[in-house]
Amino acid sequence: MIYLDNSATTKPNPSVLQSFNQVSESFFANPSSIHQLGSEVEQLLLKAKGQVAAIFEVAKSEIIFTSGGTEGNNMAIKGIAFQHQLRGKHIITTQIEHPSVYEACQSLERSGFDVTYLPVDKNGIVAVGDVAKAIRPDTILISVMHVNNEIGSVQPIREIGELAKKHPKLFFHVDHIQGLGKVPLQIKNSGIDLCTMSGHKIHGLKGTGILYISNRTKLFPLFHGGSQEKSVRSGTENLAGAVAMAKAIRLIFERQKQDGSHLLELRNYLMERIAVIDHVVINTPLEAAPHIINFSVIGLKPEVLIHTLGEKGIFISTKSACSSKLSDESRVLAALDFDEERTISGIRVSMSYDTTKVELTEFVTALEIAIKELKKVVR
Amino acid sequence: MIYLDNSATTKPNPSVLQSFNQVSESFFANPSSIHQLGSEVEQLLLKAKGQVAAIFEVAKSEIIFTSGGTEGNNMAIKGIAFQHQLRGKHIITTQIEHPSVYEACQSLERSGFDVTYLPVDKNGIVAVGDVAKAIRPDTILISVMHVNNEIGSVQPIREIGELAKKHPKLFFHVDHIQGLGKVPLQIKNSGIDLCTMSGHKIHGLKGTGILYISNRTKLFPLFHGGSQEKSVRSGTENLAGAVAMAKAIRLIFERQKQDGSHLLELRNYLMERIAVIDHVVINTPLEAAPHIINFSVIGLKPEVLIHTLGEKGIFISTKSACSSKLSDESRVLAALDFDEERTISGIRVSMSYDTTKVELTEFVTALEIAIKELKKVVR
Repeated sequence: MIYLDNSATTKPNPSVLQSFNQVSESFFANPSSIHQLGSEVEQLLLKAKGQVAAIFEVAKSEIIFTSGGTEGNNMAIKGIAFQHQLRGKHIITTQIEHPSVYEACQSLERSGFDVTYLPVDKNGIVAVGDVAKAIRPDTILISVMHVNNEIGSVQPIREIGELAKKHPKLFFHVDHIQGLGKVPLQIKNSGIDLCTMSGHKIHGLKGTGILYISNRTKLFPLFHGGSQEKSVRSGTENLAGAVAMAKAIRLIFERQKQDGSHLLELRNYLMERIAVIDHVVINTPLEAAPHIINFSVIGLKPEVLIHTLGEKGIFISTKSACSSKLSDESRVLAALDFDEERTISGIRVSMSYDTTKVELTEFVTALEIAIKELKKVVR
Repeated sequence: MIYLDNSATTKPNPSVLQSFNQVSESFFANPSSIHQLGSEVEQLLLKAKGQVAAIFEVAKSEIIFTSGGTEGNNMAIKGIAFQHQLRGKHIITTQIEHPSVYEACQSLERSGFDVTYLPVDKNGIVAVGDVAKAIRPDTILISVMHVNNEIGSVQPIREIGELAKKHPKLFFHVDHIQGLGKVPLQIKNSGIDLCTMSGHKIHGLKGTGILYISNRTKLFPLFHGGSQEKSVRSGTENLAGAVAMAKAIRLIFERQKQDGSHLLELRNYLMERIAVIDHVVINTPLEAAPHIINFSVIGLKPEVLIHTLGEKGIFISTKSACSSKLSDESRVLAALDFDEERTISGIRVSMSYDTTKVELTEFVTALEIAIKELKKVVR
């Protein structure tokens, strides 16, 4: 099997799963229970938060474990909107956000909020000047993703953060789900108030994630209840999930340090090999994250190509998994102002640190054959 | 260790954990991915839904996997409120709901909704007549728990369901978190539109749960995004968690069938033994769920008693875990109209099917000694 759909989800690291098991078996008590077993579990939860906080050089109290990226993005965006709507109802975001940001914003528009969706250039990058110009007195939130999930473009988060710092009344949210462990992001002193991460994109477990919430940031909770997590996310804490998430982050950062340049080499190799194939046009910009390569095979339906390769045990995708069953056109590729023949035929290859050059070579060979065969049928 | 805090959380069943592991390792793909691995995972997700649906004799499409009970309750209550607010803004619930229902309702009151909190009698039971009288033309939701989490009282869900059927414009939500696997509840043809269940209260895993949503029921989603689960709960599905949840339900129903009368015998034994201890007054009514016994030790702070027993390896609790760190008084015991000396000194013992008579005898002996010793100090 050659699995090249790592931006949809990754294979869990066995040692992450092992941690989940150990904690589930040995520390099952409810951290809200006031007896000694509860206290023990509460201490471990704080330890897991401490580990994550140390990695990002933030405070322990700023780390909230969630059920995943979609929860984190909704919690951040709706949480700011409902908490601060009396101050203002304007939100700034981009045209190429993940559905969990984009659709959350759309739902707020239907509730009377005003959302500015900033355009991006041909490289899939938003202009900091556009963000600055969009800020109004009633702007309460800027939400910009770090690494785009379809094409891998990297947004100028540092510069937007500096801009956000000058407007302390608004909050700055970053969807860091695709960037985590692949493209460095400074959170400390960055102007970022909220940052979403997901476990299953970094060889962690599904149902796990983190929302970083800076201490100055107040959110309206999605989950009311037993006042866990300073009342911002009620519900019995999933300690085993939290420990697994902390471990997944630690391990992916180790891999990033060791193998970051290896991933970039693989990407460059793949880009070169794909670029020369007939009917192929590359959508990912040259300056981008090291693990995502998006290209269009003009005139071929992506799902046909994906199934053909899938039969050979090679797994790639079209658009993001989270929008791949809906309309044909990629909203992200459309925002790059590409022609329709290109926006409806996008293919995404997404690698992990375990991807090898041998696998990529085999993939390219299979891709060339598949395109030739399918083109014959289409003609 | 004698663990008698099973209403706070339970020890995961090893075979549930094993299923979680097997699925995490072997079926890690994203069910939204259109390649063959994704389809395989999607099929398994449907299978897990089918298993749960078969148990409750409902449709597969009515089962939604969640991250737990608090999410389920918030999803149901806020989901109805925000979706149907144009038709009406009135909600009926009781004074003894779990914080995840009670606080969700309180948050809606702050957003302009009108909530009726019905009283309960000395046995902790709401009168069906009171529910009937409370229904108004603008009522959109009735939310009543099945089994109370502090005292184990069982609400007349069947009768309220019959009443709800006569008012098809409103929706009926049941918090079945404490009742699941302990007190039978018919969902099919019951008038119930929404029913919340949690994994970790039935030897399943934390971070897992189910919200039953009848096909006629439309909810405003808490999580917007990739349109998973018919758009009512976006986010990559946690297949391993779903399979683990389905297994936990199957196993707890087997235990209920085998050992239901055993649990009731244990409860009766414990009630008899506790009733004769000095300073003890029993709060749980005679007709109640078979696993929860609540009593007050007049004049003793529950946390002191809990710690004293905890040092001997016996674990019990005060109130629910989800509200045990807040104010001293139990909102539930206060709703039963007990004196303050009784409402601030409540102790909850909650059993599992693995609890033995020997454990209970040891607990009662330790309790008697602890009360005597502590009373000396207090005097």
